[in-house]
Amino acid sequence: MEREPSENMNAEVIKEGDYVVLYIEAGKKHLVKVTRGREFHTHRGYIKLSDLIGKKYGDYVISNVGSKFYLLKPTPEDYVMKVERVTQIIYPKDIGLIILRSGVGPGSIVVEAGTGSGALTGALAYYVRPHGRVYSYEIRKEFLERARRNLEKLGLINYVVLKHKDITKGIDERYVDAVILDLATPWLVVGHAHEALKGGGAFVSFSPTIDQVIRTVEELRKYPFVDITVSEIFLRNYKVKRGETRPETFMVGHTGYVVFARKVNEF
Amino acid sequence: MEREPSENMNAEVIKEGDYVVLYIEAGKKHLVKVTRGREFHTHRGYIKLSDLIGKKYGDYVISNVGSKFYLLKPTPEDYVMKVERVTQIIYPKDIGLIILRSGVGPGSIVVEAGTGSGALTGALAYYVRPHGRVYSYEIRKEFLERARRNLEKLGLINYVVLKHKDITKGIDERYVDAVILDLATPWLVVGHAHEALKGGGAFVSFSPTIDQVIRTVEELRKYPFVDITVSEIFLRNYKVKRGETRPETFMVGHTGYVVFARKVNEF
Amino acid sequence: MEREPSENMNAEVIKEGDYVVLYIEAGKKHLVKVTRGREFHTHRGYIKLSDLIGKKYGDYVISNVGSKFYLLKPTPEDYVMKVERVTQIIYPKDIGLIILRSGVGPGSIVVEAGTGSGALTGALAYYVRPHGRVYSYEIRKEFLERARRNLEKLGLINYVVLKHKDITKGIDERYVDAVILDLATPWLVVGHAHEALKGGGAFVSFSPTIDQVIRTVEELRKYPFVDITVSEIFLRNYKVKRGETRPETFMVGHTGYVVFARKVNEF
Amino acid sequence: MEREPSENMNAEVIKEGDYVVLYIEAGKKHLVKVTRGREFHTHRGYIKLSDLIGKKYGDYVISNVGSKFYLLKPTPEDYVMKVERVTQIIYPKDIGLIILRSGVGPGSIVVEAGTGSGALTGALAYYVRPHGRVYSYEIRKEFLERARRNLEKLGLINYVVLKHKDITKGIDERYVDAVILDLATPWLVVGHAHEALKGGGAFVSFSPTIDQVIRTVEELRKYPFVDITVSEIFLRNYKVKRGETRPETFMVGHTGYVVFARKVNEF
Repeated sequence: MEREPSENMNAEVIKEGDYVVLYIEAGKKHLVKVTRGREFHTHRGYIKLSDLIGKKYGDYVISNVGSKFYLLKPTPEDYVMKVERVTQIIYPKDIGLIILRSGVGPGSIVVEAGTGSGALTGALAYYVRPHGRVYSYEIRKEFLERARRNLEKLGLINYVVLKHKDITKGIDERYVDAVILDLATPWLVVGHAHEALKGGGAFVSFSPTIDQVIRTVEELRKYPFVDITVSEIFLRNYKVKRGETRPETFMVGHTGYVVFARKVNEF
Repeated sequence: MEREPSENMNAEVIKEGDYVVLYIEAGKKHLVKVTRGREFHTHRGYIKLSDLIGKKYGDYVISNVGSKFYLLKPTPEDYVMKVERVTQIIYPKDIGLIILRSGVGPGSIVVEAGTGSGALTGALAYYVRPHGRVYSYEIRKEFLERARRNLEKLGLINYVVLKHKDITKGIDERYVDAVILDLATPWLVVGHAHEALKGGGAFVSFSPTIDQVIRTVEELRKYPFVDITVSEIFLRNYKVKRGETRPETFMVGHTGYVVFARKVNEF
Repeated sequence: MEREPSENMNAEVIKEGDYVVLYIEAGKKHLVKVTRGREFHTHRGYIKLSDLIGKKYGDYVISNVGSKFYLLKPTPEDYVMKVERVTQIIYPKDIGLIILRSGVGPGSIVVEAGTGSGALTGALAYYVRPHGRVYSYEIRKEFLERARRNLEKLGLINYVVLKHKDITKGIDERYVDAVILDLATPWLVVGHAHEALKGGGAFVSFSPTIDQVIRTVEELRKYPFVDITVSEIFLRNYKVKRGETRPETFMVGHTGYVVFARKVNEF
Repeated sequence: MEREPSENMNAEVIKEGDYVVLYIEAGKKHLVKVTRGREFHTHRGYIKLSDLIGKKYGDYVISNVGSKFYLLKPTPEDYVMKVERVTQIIYPKDIGLIILRSGVGPGSIVVEAGTGSGALTGALAYYVRPHGRVYSYEIRKEFLERARRNLEKLGLINYVVLKHKDITKGIDERYVDAVILDLATPWLVVGHAHEALKGGGAFVSFSPTIDQVIRTVEELRKYPFVDITVSEIFLRNYKVKRGETRPETFMVGHTGYVVFARKVNEF
C-alpha cells in the first residue's frame, strides 16, 4: 500500500527535528523535540536527545540513572495535552465528540477560531489531511506566532492557514464543511458562520459557561440552523488491579459545553 | 483546492443511491437511501424519496401533510447511531475518545474486531480515508454480510477489508497503527495484537463489564505495552431556553469502558 | 432500651392500617396500606391484604400463583419514591445531601414549601421526630389535602403543621433551624427566610433549571448569608454478578440543583 | 415547644468547650473548640477563642487584621469533613444516601464498623438521637481513643457505644435496625449482620473497590436478603455568577460504592 508524502505522520524512524513522546516508567509523559546537543532532564534522570536519532518508535533509551524512556509517536491527544498552552480548557474528550458529530475528516474545509496555542487547530489539521484545510482566525498576534511554531513542530502547518483577523467581523471563506469556535463570544460569529457554511455544514462552539451557551443557542435560533444540541462530556479514569480496581479519586469535573447545529439553506 | 475522487464524501448534490439524513421539524432524524419509487413514512407524513434527487444538502422537501424534512449529509455520529444495528453498545462519545487517543487518522492501517453491524468499522473507515485501510474481523457470516451492505451504502466499503476469521486465533496483518476491539474476550487478542502492531501502535478495547477490563489489563501487563489506561465517558445533553435551561432528565449512564495501551518493542 | 410512643416507626408486628412495602421476587416494590377486604394485584399474582395482619417485617406471604411477597417497613426513600406524587423532581439522592448539609435532625424546627404531594415533607418529618416540627406551606388546597392523607398514612402527620399560605408573602415562624424550598420562585422567599432563620440556620432551595439557581444566588448575596454553595448529585446503579459487573445502562441524568446558604446576623 | 436536654444540639449561645465552625470571608471553614487562653491562626489573621464565649451562632468576630470570622454551628457535613481523620473515604454525599435508604433515624438501633476517626459514627449518632444508639466496632485501640475524643467534642458520645472488638468475629447485638460497614472486608460480616438485624433491617456497606462490592454481593445472595442494590454517588459543585456560571473544574470522581440490602426472615 503506497502512502502520500503528506501522510508522513506514519514514518517510523526518528530523525532530528521530530517530536517524540517520552513515556517514563512511572507513567509520566513528555513531548520533546529531537535536537542535537540538548539534554532532557526529569525526576528519573536525563537523556541526550541526539540518542533518539535512528531509533524506532516503540524503542527505549536509558537515562543516566538507569530508567527506561520509551519513544512514542504523538497522537492528537498528546498534541492537545502536551502542547505549550496559553489557554487551557478544551480536552481530548471534547474534541473527540466534536470530530464525530461535526463530520470533520479527511478532505474537510474547516474554519476555526480562536487559534490560541494551536492545540485544537492541530487536532483538526490531523484529521483533514491530506487534502483538507483548517482556516484558523486569531486576533492576538503573539498567540498566532506561538501557534505557528507549535504547528510546524508537529508537522501539521501545511494543512493550516493562520489568519490574523477578528472572526466576529466576518469570515472570508465560503462553502466550508464546519465552523468550530473556542472563543469568548461565539454568538457574535453565528451569522457569519451561516454565510460561510455549505448546506448541512456544522456549527460547533465550545464554552465553559452556561451563559455563553444560552446566548449562542438563542442566536442560532434566529438563523436557518437545525439539529441544535448542547452536550457535556465527562471522562473518568480507573486504576485497574485485581482486588483493587476502582475509579481514580480526582477527576476533571468540567471543561466546557459543546453547542452543535447544522446549517440549512432556509427555514 | 482539488479533491480526490476518494473524497467524494464531500459531494453536494443528492443523487440516486445516496444516503441522506432527514431532519424532521420536531427533532427526529432518519437515515434513508435515495431510491426511486419508494416512499418514506413518518408521524409527520410521507415523502417520495425520488424527490430528493437533484436537491442540495441543506435544502428541504415538504411532506404530504406540510412538514419540512431537511436533507443532511450523514456524519460519523449518524452512521453509528442510525445504521441498522445487530448489537448496541458503542456510542459516538466512546468512538471520539478512541479516535483521539489512538491516533487513528488519514492513512492509518487499523485492525478491528468484531465487525458486528459495521458501525464502528464505518466510523474508523471515515477517518483513515483515502489511503488507509481497516481490516475488520468477524466470525459470524451473517453479520459480515449485513456490515458489507451497510458500508456499501455509506460509500466506505473501499477503505475496508472484511475478513471472515476468528481474531482470537491470530492477526494476519503486521506493522499496523492500531488494533481496536469490541468483542466479548479482548484478552484473548492481546498477544496477537502485540505481534501485529508497529512500535508505539495503539491497542484499544471497548467492554461493557469491569470484569472484561480487569482480564484485559492483566493480559496487557504480560507483554511489552506501556501507557495502559482505562477510561469511561459520560455524555449529558441540555435543553437550552432562556429561563428554562437544564440538563435532560434521562441519560445513558453506561455503554462501556475503554482500555488503551501502546506497544513498545521490549520491556 | 425503652422507646417513646412517638417512635412507633419501630413497631414490628404489622397491623391494620399500616403501610408496608411489598418486595416481589423479581425486584419490584409496591407501597400498600393494610386494609381488610382488599386484594393487591400484580404481574406475579395477587394477595389478600388482610393476610399481612399479625405478620412481622421480614416475613413473606405467597400470592395465588406462588410468588413470594416480602414485607418491609418503608424507609424515607420508599416514601419519596412511592408516595402518590403530583409533581416529580426531588429524589432520595438530593434529600440525603439536603439533610446532611442543612443539619436537619431530631428536634429541628423546619419551614418547608411547597408541600406538593408531601414526599419531601414526610422525609423531613421522619428526621425531626419526636420533638421537632415541619411547617409546610402550600397554596393549592387540593395538594394540601392529598399531602395530609399521605402523611397520615405514613404516621408522620403529628410532626407536621400544614399551612394553606403563600410563602412568597412571608413566613410566620421565627428562629427556625432551616428553610427548605422546592418551588418555582425560591428567590422570592430569600428575604423572608432570612427573617425566619436563627443565626447560622440553613437556607436550602432545590430547582431544576440553572436560571432559578442564578436568580436565587443573586438574591442570597443581597442579605447576610454566607457559605453559599450550589451542587448537583448524580446516582448510578450497578448490576453486580461475577463476570458481568457493570453500571446500569440508563440513569436519571438530572433532577435539580441544590442551593445552600447559612444565615448570619449581619454582614 | 419544649425540647429534651438530649437535644441540646440546638442551643444558641456559644460557651466554653463548644465546637464552632469558623466561616472566613474568602470561603474557608475551620472547626474549632472554644478554649480559653488559645488563639486560632489563619491566613486572614488570628482570633482569641475566648472571644467567642457568649456570642450567638450567626455572629462574627474580627481577626487582628480586620477579617470577619462568622460563627456557625457544625452540621453533620461539617463533622464528616472537618473531624481529624485517620482514614479518608466516605463523604457527606454517600452518608446522605445511606441515611435515606437505610431508614436510620430517631430511635434507630445501629451497628457500625469500623469506627475509624468516628466521622461516620458521629453522623449516625446525630440522627438516632435522642433514644437510639450506635454500637461502633473497632479493632485498633488508638483509633477508638481518637474517635471517643472526637465524639465527646461533638456532644454525641452519649448516643454511641464504642466497642473494642473485631466485628468479623460476630455481633453481640440483636434485633437492630441497621448494620453499616466501612471496613476492608465487609463480606466477612454478612452472616453476622443477618443474625443481628431485625426482619426488614438494612445492611449497608461502603467500599472503594469494585472487587469488594462483588464479594459482598455474592455473600449477601447466600443469605435471606432482598432488594440488594449497588450505587455510586457523584457530587459536582457550581460557581454561580450571572454571565459566568459554570461547574467547578475539579471534582472528587470517586469515594466508594454503596451496597445495600434488606434482611428477610427466610428465603
